[in-house]
Amino acid sequence: MSETDKPTKTVGKATNIAWHEGEITREDRAKALGHSGCTLWLTGLSGSGKSTIGVALEKALIRRGILAYRLDGDNVRHGLNANLGFSPEDREENIRRVGEVAKLFADAGVVTISSFISPYQRDRDKVRVIHEEAGLPFLEVFIDTPIEVCEQRDPKGLYKKARAGEIKGFTGIDDPYETPQRPEAHIKTDTQSIEESADQLVEALRAHGIL
Amino acid sequence: MSETDKPTKTVGKATNIAWHEGEITREDRAKALGHSGCTLWLTGLSGSGKSTIGVALEKALIRRGILAYRLDGDNVRHGLNANLGFSPEDREENIRRVGEVAKLFADAGVVTISSFISPYQRDRDKVRVIHEEAGLPFLEVFIDTPIEVCEQRDPKGLYKKARAGEIKGFTGIDDPYETPQRPEAHIKTDTQSIEESADQLVEALRAHGIL
Repeated sequence: MSETDKPTKTVGKATNIAWHEGEITREDRAKALGHSGCTLWLTGLSGSGKSTIGVALEKALIRRGILAYRLDGDNVRHGLNANLGFSPEDREENIRRVGEVAKLFADAGVVTISSFISPYQRDRDKVRVIHEEAGLPFLEVFIDTPIEVCEQRDPKGLYKKARAGEIKGFTGIDDPYETPQRPEAHIKTDTQSIEESADQLVEALRAHGIL
Repeated sequence: MSETDKPTKTVGKATNIAWHEGEITREDRAKALGHSGCTLWLTGLSGSGKSTIGVALEKALIRRGILAYRLDGDNVRHGLNANLGFSPEDREENIRRVGEVAKLFADAGVVTISSFISPYQRDRDKVRVIHEEAGLPFLEVFIDTPIEVCEQRDPKGLYKKARAGEIKGFTGIDDPYETPQRPEAHIKTDTQSIEESADQLVEALRAHGIL
């Protein structure tokens, strides 16, 4: 019944519940931090380099004194989304929850870097919409690596398993990856180094007025 | 299939996926921010003043340059937990998800202030455990207001509705509130002002080495 405890915004009402004048705004927060929050939504095939680029970007930002945080399978699938499996419904709910959490982080003033395959445009668009409705910047970042390269890297042998039919519904093999049509940033990992990719995203953040 | 994209920690492997040396640590983050992250878990009856004290604390912290963020019904029930109702299972899942999100914020270095009735000790203890397992400070804060006072305030007329039987399972009326047995902070709103309460929590953060 937590939401019934939502404080009233009324000022001057004769209960201390009404003491909400001067609530911290997003602007106060941005002023204190020196930058505003946003979500960088990295999407791409398994093995495309999303997490690697996310780590490099996080490092580049933290070293500049910008509070960045990564959301990925590591810290989400074992916690918040530990009760989700891999059915189509659960995958959709996985992305929905991550999108909502990214929105909260962005609202808090954090440069949020999410790294999930998120193969469907519809799911990515929903995350964009909840950000836009909240007035928060959302940058879709396409980590564009040819599937041949991803499959060659295959750091965990997942493509091999998918080819052998041991994993079903694997993105790029027997489940589609919908290429972003108008991403805010497009990273071609076969022609850019990781550092160049991170720099490109820092520039994108500047271009969008976030830094 | 996001978690299959989890980066390997292997260093020196001949793929750029392995480029994770020098990943940002919690210490790097704390150094950049000037403070570490934690969760302050405010629990108490509806109308006890959790959100009001949370707002005052957030303001006190942001003004000191400390990145604080509030999680409450306002920003969670309409987003992340919009697909949850009020069955016992859904209430438990509501608190579980908030606990996991608080943990992520604390990991990011944020002083996280959650304001939920969270009436059951078992649910609060689970949130404590996931923080402790992750090495993150968790401070249970009991917002102690006599139910008579809460009912008198009744800013939204919820107690009135519960007494009339229009709301079932209302904490303190026909559903129990389990008083925290060993909270890290105990705020008695009938003898402390809101500012005194916020100051007490800032002191608790200092005493726990977070600020």
